[in-house]
Amino acid sequence: MDNLLTDLRQQFPADRIQESASAKAAFQSDGLTAFAVQPRAIIVPRTSDEVVQAVQWCNKHSVPFVARGSGTSLSGGSLPHAEGIVIALNRLNRILSVDLPNRLAVVEPGVINSKLTTAVEHAGLYYAPDPSSQHVCTIGGNVAFNSGGAHCLKYGMTSNHVMAMKMVLGDGEVLQVGPRMGEPLGPDLLGLMVGSEGLLGIALEITVKLMPKPESFHTVLAGYRSLQDAGAAVATIISSGLLPAAMEIMDHLSMQAATAGVGATYPAGVAAVLIVELDGSQEAVAEERILLDRLLAETGATEVIVAANAEERASIWKGRKSVFSAVGRLTPDFIVQDGVVPRSKLGYALQRIEELSQAAGIPVANVFHAGDGNLHPLIMFDGRKAGELHRSEELAAQIVQLCIDLGGSITGEHGVGMEKRQFLAGMFDEASIECMRRVRLACDPLEISNRGKMFPDAEAPSLGMYGLHPLEAAGIASRM
Amino acid sequence: MDNLLTDLRQQFPADRIQESASAKAAFQSDGLTAFAVQPRAIIVPRTSDEVVQAVQWCNKHSVPFVARGSGTSLSGGSLPHAEGIVIALNRLNRILSVDLPNRLAVVEPGVINSKLTTAVEHAGLYYAPDPSSQHVCTIGGNVAFNSGGAHCLKYGMTSNHVMAMKMVLGDGEVLQVGPRMGEPLGPDLLGLMVGSEGLLGIALEITVKLMPKPESFHTVLAGYRSLQDAGAAVATIISSGLLPAAMEIMDHLSMQAATAGVGATYPAGVAAVLIVELDGSQEAVAEERILLDRLLAETGATEVIVAANAEERASIWKGRKSVFSAVGRLTPDFIVQDGVVPRSKLGYALQRIEELSQAAGIPVANVFHAGDGNLHPLIMFDGRKAGELHRSEELAAQIVQLCIDLGGSITGEHGVGMEKRQFLAGMFDEASIECMRRVRLACDPLEISNRGKMFPDAEAPSLGMYGLHPLEAAGIASRM
Repeated sequence: MDNLLTDLRQQFPADRIQESASAKAAFQSDGLTAFAVQPRAIIVPRTSDEVVQAVQWCNKHSVPFVARGSGTSLSGGSLPHAEGIVIALNRLNRILSVDLPNRLAVVEPGVINSKLTTAVEHAGLYYAPDPSSQHVCTIGGNVAFNSGGAHCLKYGMTSNHVMAMKMVLGDGEVLQVGPRMGEPLGPDLLGLMVGSEGLLGIALEITVKLMPKPESFHTVLAGYRSLQDAGAAVATIISSGLLPAAMEIMDHLSMQAATAGVGATYPAGVAAVLIVELDGSQEAVAEERILLDRLLAETGATEVIVAANAEERASIWKGRKSVFSAVGRLTPDFIVQDGVVPRSKLGYALQRIEELSQAAGIPVANVFHAGDGNLHPLIMFDGRKAGELHRSEELAAQIVQLCIDLGGSITGEHGVGMEKRQFLAGMFDEASIECMRRVRLACDPLEISNRGKMFPDAEAPSLGMYGLHPLEAAGIASRM
Repeated sequence: MDNLLTDLRQQFPADRIQESASAKAAFQSDGLTAFAVQPRAIIVPRTSDEVVQAVQWCNKHSVPFVARGSGTSLSGGSLPHAEGIVIALNRLNRILSVDLPNRLAVVEPGVINSKLTTAVEHAGLYYAPDPSSQHVCTIGGNVAFNSGGAHCLKYGMTSNHVMAMKMVLGDGEVLQVGPRMGEPLGPDLLGLMVGSEGLLGIALEITVKLMPKPESFHTVLAGYRSLQDAGAAVATIISSGLLPAAMEIMDHLSMQAATAGVGATYPAGVAAVLIVELDGSQEAVAEERILLDRLLAETGATEVIVAANAEERASIWKGRKSVFSAVGRLTPDFIVQDGVVPRSKLGYALQRIEELSQAAGIPVANVFHAGDGNLHPLIMFDGRKAGELHRSEELAAQIVQLCIDLGGSITGEHGVGMEKRQFLAGMFDEASIECMRRVRLACDPLEISNRGKMFPDAEAPSLGMYGLHPLEAAGIASRM
């Protein structure tokens, strides 16, 4: 290895390579998962040519690599490989061009999601995909995991907003994917790449759609007597034909977290709140609001708070988006889950999660993209207490299995990554997984691009579902 | 070959194999293109297992195959390979299941597009993608070419409506692509398959979205003094933020064709008509109509005819959708082109096409999906006149090149097929084409699935851009 690193140092200016113990520690984990693996070194390229050079160097020496933006993956997706290097894309953070008439922007992968909107809002435009981590996460990471967000209900996931990409495949080839003008033509390589979790290559330049900011918003917070009632309301609203921009549910624990974290306030005495946002022209919103009011009343909303202005709207969203980070105020440790159930089964799924939670003696907070049926149970535990970690992991696995059993998905937007490799076979038949692997080999014959992720039996560090056991042993569990 | 066919006959019941000269002649061409290649034999499976068996037999004996539905390809996409067999999917025409609450249907690939709507309209639902050939073409073919249609402006192409597929890869492996619930997860194999023109495998069961039929329609036929004015109106309407369900342009030759073909009537003295359809709730349509009326007036519409009822609406669409088949009444021969230009360049592109047409002395009718910038020039000629065929082919190539030069696409919805292989390199860089080829090899290592299509230098029958020369020699050109 020393020889290899010596060679690496000769290829790049000194400030591009980090090898210190503190640097390796800074890159050992990601997001809210507790996996921790230290890389051999970190490369911090300044140009896309340097990224290509790094990938080609990895190919020459069969060294695994993982591209990393802000490291906000919630599935261990940007975890380093112990034999590999990290290619940190944070300095590739330039907005390369903005084409206002055609509503397109070309960005480097390290651009922070919300900074793109900041750069174009003077023209009445915005970038629609809005993960809760949008002020931190990078568009490159969003592309790798096809990230969603509260407003993806109406506006679609990242894949609906990426029009083209320049990228480097795992084997070091540089190519432009995505036909011009977004017209589909031939095998859809662009669609293949978005969401492939870094296993096929690295995005270098990303062309994204910009959208006109809606003229008008109507944002309400509706209180319900039970979480199940709120879940059932979502199915009713969608069945009515109404397509809100966003529909989110927070249960009482999530509300507590948001109150503790950012001082958000909620109606007293409700078990859950449903946030519904309508957007569009003033006329359309006014029209839809009448229907929404009726539906909220019919589904048993006990209190409906309407955001009177942009500040109140921002405040509702600030509370909602703070939950993942704020829940740490209520519990020493937690696991964020991410699963999907058919909307028609939301009420039942929430009831089963509550039952599983009680049986395990582990509280679960629920805050989620209800319109998509995309659950985000927050499993709250204290890793210092004997057995709690183990029971929490079991509970998380039971919830994932519940999603599979109900005909849903093991992930809505956080990806498979390291966390859910063993569940992939619950979603796809063997021939599909084999086909994915062959496609991977077509792009990355050495399987060095984000090696060890997604595929269940790939060579990889042997970590538990949450990687907690090795960390617990190392006393790191409580930093989750 | 005799031995091979003998073996084939032993694998299938006699009524599954067709080898007569008349059968081979019936399968030698497709759609409106003039390519003609006869296959060695045609297999007509009755079940998806028989399709798999046929593909596996082809692999065992390295025999190229092409899956074919109704053969309405407009790019030679379903043309047989001279050394290969046709797998005709017409008997796989069952709607396997309809799930009304979740608005999904599972169909076999040979189901005729419009028959799916017929089967579900009692429940207020329909299948949205509507190619002009929808009463003839199959959903399997739509999947292979990611077909569009007039209403794809608002509702998207076939790829936006396919949720999952059971398929057989080129190598004979059977797999289920597409995550359950449409939740994106991992490399998007489903997206990769849709639009891959039969080069990766054959769809066996297709799960598609059904949509609620809009409550209300507003369909207008607006006359313009020039084709360029109509083209410019489209850019203005889209820029206004209005998103009609469809926006189609017909020029005077197309109107003549529709009048001759199905008796359609158009305002007197206009050079072009713009068909605009709004749909949605009554309130939304009423609201949008006010804006549309203003925009049509501002863009110089000289006459606006509003469909007063469902019959008049159907009549407008019948005229529009008849043009491809009706244009044969105006000219002995024609070539249907399919290209895309940015909407902002529509007016300029139409003017250039007119200039190219005049320079060549070959009339061009224009009827097209204007909202998408998707041109369908109909190049009208008489193959019996010396040199006309050659000049028409040159003109078609000039129009394709114009689309490339304007930053558009060589195909909007008809595909690359046999027709446009040599233009692929105008759309994608070498590394992209190589990546597509490697993905193809991952699914079909013998490259027998629709061999000879899409890739520019693949082994294939040597036909001209339109395959007209060999046909002209054989006296078939006039059947186009």
